[in-house]
Amino acid sequence: MEGNVEVKIEPKEEKKTQKQNPMKKGGRRICKVLGYLTGDMKEFGEWLQDKPLPFQFVDWVLRGTSQVMFVNNPLSGLIMIIGFLVQNTWWTITGCLGTIVSTATALLLSQDRSAIAAGLHGYNGVLVGLLIAVFSDKGNFYWWLLLPVALVSMTCPVFSSALGSIFSKWDLPVFTLPFNMALTLYTAATGHYNLFFPTVLFQPATSVPNITWSNIDVPLLLQSIPVGIGQVYGCDNPWTGGIFLVALFISSPLICLHAAIGSAVGMLAALSLAAPFGNIYAGLWNYNSCLACIAIGGMFYSLTWQTHLLSIACAFFCAYLGATVSNIFSVFGLPAFTWPFCLSALTFLLLTTKNANIYKLPLSKVTYPEANRLYYITTKQHMARCEL
Amino acid sequence: MEGNVEVKIEPKEEKKTQKQNPMKKGGRRICKVLGYLTGDMKEFGEWLQDKPLPFQFVDWVLRGTSQVMFVNNPLSGLIMIIGFLVQNTWWTITGCLGTIVSTATALLLSQDRSAIAAGLHGYNGVLVGLLIAVFSDKGNFYWWLLLPVALVSMTCPVFSSALGSIFSKWDLPVFTLPFNMALTLYTAATGHYNLFFPTVLFQPATSVPNITWSNIDVPLLLQSIPVGIGQVYGCDNPWTGGIFLVALFISSPLICLHAAIGSAVGMLAALSLAAPFGNIYAGLWNYNSCLACIAIGGMFYSLTWQTHLLSIACAFFCAYLGATVSNIFSVFGLPAFTWPFCLSALTFLLLTTKNANIYKLPLSKVTYPEANRLYYITTKQHMARCEL
Amino acid sequence: MEGNVEVKIEPKEEKKTQKQNPMKKGGRRICKVLGYLTGDMKEFGEWLQDKPLPFQFVDWVLRGTSQVMFVNNPLSGLIMIIGFLVQNTWWTITGCLGTIVSTATALLLSQDRSAIAAGLHGYNGVLVGLLIAVFSDKGNFYWWLLLPVALVSMTCPVFSSALGSIFSKWDLPVFTLPFNMALTLYTAATGHYNLFFPTVLFQPATSVPNITWSNIDVPLLLQSIPVGIGQVYGCDNPWTGGIFLVALFISSPLICLHAAIGSAVGMLAALSLAAPFGNIYAGLWNYNSCLACIAIGGMFYSLTWQTHLLSIACAFFCAYLGATVSNIFSVFGLPAFTWPFCLSALTFLLLTTKNANIYKLPLSKVTYPEANRLYYITTKQHMARCEL
Repeated sequence: MEGNVEVKIEPKEEKKTQKQNPMKKGGRRICKVLGYLTGDMKEFGEWLQDKPLPFQFVDWVLRGTSQVMFVNNPLSGLIMIIGFLVQNTWWTITGCLGTIVSTATALLLSQDRSAIAAGLHGYNGVLVGLLIAVFSDKGNFYWWLLLPVALVSMTCPVFSSALGSIFSKWDLPVFTLPFNMALTLYTAATGHYNLFFPTVLFQPATSVPNITWSNIDVPLLLQSIPVGIGQVYGCDNPWTGGIFLVALFISSPLICLHAAIGSAVGMLAALSLAAPFGNIYAGLWNYNSCLACIAIGGMFYSLTWQTHLLSIACAFFCAYLGATVSNIFSVFGLPAFTWPFCLSALTFLLLTTKNANIYKLPLSKVTYPEANRLYYITTKQHMARCEL
Repeated sequence: MEGNVEVKIEPKEEKKTQKQNPMKKGGRRICKVLGYLTGDMKEFGEWLQDKPLPFQFVDWVLRGTSQVMFVNNPLSGLIMIIGFLVQNTWWTITGCLGTIVSTATALLLSQDRSAIAAGLHGYNGVLVGLLIAVFSDKGNFYWWLLLPVALVSMTCPVFSSALGSIFSKWDLPVFTLPFNMALTLYTAATGHYNLFFPTVLFQPATSVPNITWSNIDVPLLLQSIPVGIGQVYGCDNPWTGGIFLVALFISSPLICLHAAIGSAVGMLAALSLAAPFGNIYAGLWNYNSCLACIAIGGMFYSLTWQTHLLSIACAFFCAYLGATVSNIFSVFGLPAFTWPFCLSALTFLLLTTKNANIYKLPLSKVTYPEANRLYYITTKQHMARCEL
Repeated sequence: MEGNVEVKIEPKEEKKTQKQNPMKKGGRRICKVLGYLTGDMKEFGEWLQDKPLPFQFVDWVLRGTSQVMFVNNPLSGLIMIIGFLVQNTWWTITGCLGTIVSTATALLLSQDRSAIAAGLHGYNGVLVGLLIAVFSDKGNFYWWLLLPVALVSMTCPVFSSALGSIFSKWDLPVFTLPFNMALTLYTAATGHYNLFFPTVLFQPATSVPNITWSNIDVPLLLQSIPVGIGQVYGCDNPWTGGIFLVALFISSPLICLHAAIGSAVGMLAALSLAAPFGNIYAGLWNYNSCLACIAIGGMFYSLTWQTHLLSIACAFFCAYLGATVSNIFSVFGLPAFTWPFCLSALTFLLLTTKNANIYKLPLSKVTYPEANRLYYITTKQHMARCEL
C-alpha cells in the first residue's frame, strides 16, 4: 500500500519541487493518468473552472456524493451512483435530487464557492435523499416524497453554515451533523403515525434477545463488512458495498482500508454485546465505525501508527456509542442515523495530547490521507530544519 | 407601511443630523408625540432615570412583559397585561409575579443595569409565571402555585447570565432559552404524578389522527392567526391575540407584520403535515413561527427583501421543528414550550453568507426593526464613503 | 472553623514570606505535621517526584479517589477506600480497577502530567468502576464485569481531554462529566435486556406516590445526610458516608461543611416536592446537591458570605434539577448519575455579575477552599495597593 501511496502523490510532489526527471517510460505515463483520476482530482476541478456552470455543477454533485465518505472525487461519486442503482432505482432518484437541491441551495445562500466545489454542500443532501426514501413507510415511487426530500435537503446548507460558525472556534469539521439534524427533524416531525409521510416504526427492546451462538452464520458475518460500508448510504446490498469499496480505493487506498477495518470493528463490538444476529448481518453496527475509523485514521489526523491505533479505538468507541444512541432514539421511534459517528469522531478530534505523533491537521489543509501524511512529514521536516 | 416607518424613526434621525427643519405644523406635533410612544420609548426611559426606583421598576417590568416579542416598550407591555386580563385573571397574577421576581433577582445578582432597564431580565419571568399556571393541573387560584412561580422565576436571571456567557462568543441573543430551561426543569421535576404541583398530562401519539379534509373550518383556521400570537404567552383567546397585535403595532409595525406572517406560516405548515385540526385552531403550530419570523425579519438581521424571505423560510423551518420537539418531548410528558423558536432562530442567526444584503446586526446595536434598518443603511453608506 | 483554617494554610504562607518566627513549641510542631497531612498535601507530592513511578502512581490513584469530592489528598483517598470496603468488597475492587485503568490510559495518551499527578484523570475512573458494579444486575463478583469496567474507564481520559478543549474557552472545569458520559454510554448501550451485562431496571413513575406524612421517620431523614454523601460514590451505608465526611474534614473542613449542608438541602428539596420517602432515606436526592454545594461554596468561587448563599441556592437548584433528570432519564431506563450536579454547577459558574464579592478563581489557581480564599484576599489586597 505504501508504494501505491508514493505513486499517487507524485503529481503533487512534482509541483512542489519542479526538478524531477522527465517522464520517459510508458509505465510512468499510466501512473500520471492514474494520478489525475485518483486522490481529489484537483487538476480536473481546476480544468473545469472556466467551463459552463452546468458542467461544474455536475462535478460538484458527484463530489458531494462521494464526500459522505470523505472522498472528494467525481469518479468515485459516479461509481457510487452505480452502486445506488444496483440497490434501488427510487433511492437513486431521491438521493440525486437531495444532492442537487442541497448544492443549489448553498449557491443561492452565497456560501463559500470552494466548499461547494469540493462537494461539501452536497454530501448531506445525498444522505437526506436516500434515507428519507429508506425510512419511508410508503414504499418505492411514492412521488409526493420528492417534496420533503427537496425541502429537507434545503435545510442542509443552513445547518452546515450554522454548525460551521460554532465549530470554527475549535477548527472542527461538521461531519454529517447537518444530515443528522435535518433527518432527525423530519423523521420526528412526521413519525410513524403521519397521514402523508409515515416513517418505518422503530421500537425499544423490551426483552432479552434470544441468541443461540451455534446458529451464527460466519459467511453472513464476513459479508456484513461490505454490507456495513453500504449502510453508510442506507444500502444493504453487499454488491453495493463492494462497489463503494472500489470507489474508495480509486481515490485513496488508505480510506478504503480504514473503511474495511472500521466495518469489521463494528461487527466485533456487536458480538461482544450479544446483539441480535439480524442487525449484525444487516451491517447496522458497522457503518458508524467505518466512518469514524476513516475520519481518525488519516483523514483529520495525519496517519501514523499511533493514529492508526487511535482510529481502531475510535471505531470500537463508536460502535458502542451506536448501541447507546439506538437504544435512546428508539424511545422516540427514531433510528440512530450517523449521530454515533459524528459524536465519537468529534470527541476523538477534540483530544489534546503531548504526543507529537498524534498530529491533527488544520482543517483548511485536509485533503485525503496520502496527501495529509505528506503535508505532515513536510511540516515536520520544516520544523526540524527551523530548529537547527 | 414604509411611510409609517419613516415617520417613526424621525426623532432618531433628528438627533443624528441636528439640521432638520423646525416643526411648524400640528400634524408634525402629533407625529412627535407618537414618536415618543412608539419604538423603544427611549426618551421615556431616560426621563425616568433620576426618578425613584419603584417608578423605574414598574417601567422595567412593563418592558419585560413586552420583551417576549422583542418589544422594548412599556406602553405595549401595559396593553399586553390588559390582554392577559381578558384571558384569565389568575394567569395575569402569576405572570406579573414572575416578571417582578425575575427582575428583582437580577438586581440582587448585580446584573447589567441597562439590560434590566430594557426588560431583558423580565420576559423570561412573565412566561414562567403564565405557563406554570397554564400547565398546572390544579386549576385557577391554587395559591400554593405562587411558590414555584417565584422560585422558578428566580432561576431565569441565572440562566440568562450563564447562557449569555456562552453565547457572547458568537454574539448571539439568549432568546427565551432561560424560560425554556427553567420551565422544562420545573415541569419535568414535578410532572403529572406529583402530589403538590401536578402538571397537565401530555402523551405521545399512538395512532394516525382521523382527519376529514371536508370538515375543515376556514374561519377558525383564519382565527388561528391571532390565537397563535396569543399562544406566545400561552393564551388561547383570539381577542387577547388581537390586543397583542395592537401592542406590537404601537411599538413597531414591522414586528406586527412579521408576527402575523409567522403565525400564518405555522398554520400552513401544520396543514402540510396533516396535523389534527384542534391543535391548528388552538394556534399551537403558530406561536413558535411567529417569534422566529420576527427575530429573523428585521430584529437581528436588518430588514431587506432577502432577510424577509429568510424570515419566512425560518418560520416554516420552525413550524416543522415544532412538530419534532412536540413529538420528542411528549415522550417525557412535556409540551414543546418555545424551544423550537429558540433553536431555529439561533440556527438562522449562525448562518454565514457572502450576500451583503443579509446583514446581522451587532447584538449591542439591536433595538427595533425600523431603527435597525436605519442603522444598517447608515453603516452601508458610511462604508461606501470610506471606500471612495 | 476559621481558626483551624489559619493553622492549615500556614505552610503555604511560610513559603511566600519566608520571614516567620521559628517553630518553638510542641503545639506548633503538631500543627506543622497536620499541615503536611491536610489541604492538598503538596509537599508529599513534591517529595514523591523523584521516587520510582509505582510509588507516584499509587499517590495519583489515591488522589484520584478523593478528587470526586474535589479533594486532592492521598490520605483522604485512602480513608475513602476504607469506606468502600465497609460498604462492599466487590465494589472496592471495581472502583480501584477503574481508577488505575483510567490513570494509566491518561499516561498512555500523554496527557498533562500535573493533571495526572493531581488525580484529575482518576476520579472519573473510580466512579465508573463503582457505579458499573452498583447498577449491574448480575450481583457481586461477576468477574466478567471487570472487562467493561476497564474499557469504560479507558474512555474517561478521552472525554476529559475533549471536554477540556471545549470548556477551556470559558475556563470551566469538566467536573464529573466524563464519568457521566462514559457511564451513560455504557448503561444505555447494554440496558436491562442485555445478555452479558444487564443493568438494573429503572422505570418512569406512572402514578402519584402514596405518601402519608405522619409515617415520616425523622432519624432516617437525618441519617440521609451522611448516606447522601456516601451516594456520591453510589454507597448507601451511613457508616461509609460518615467515613467520607472524616476524609473530607482532614483535607478541608470547609469542603466537609458544604458537603453536609448540600446533603441536607437535597433532603429538604425532596420533602418540598413530596418525593417517595424511600428515595429520600436512600440519599438519592442528596448527592448531587452535596457536590454542587462544595463546588460553588469555596472551591471554584472564593468563599464569602455571598458565595456561601449562592452555594445553598445552587444546592436547591441542583436538587430540583436532579428530579428533572431522573424523570427524563427514567424514560430511557437510566438513572440520573451526577448529570444534575454537573449541569447546575456549570450554570452557576457561568454566572457573571458586577458583585466583587462573587469572585471566580482562574481554573489554574484552584486548590482547596481555604487556600482559594487566601489567594482571593491576597489578590484583592494587591489590586487595592495598585490602585493607590
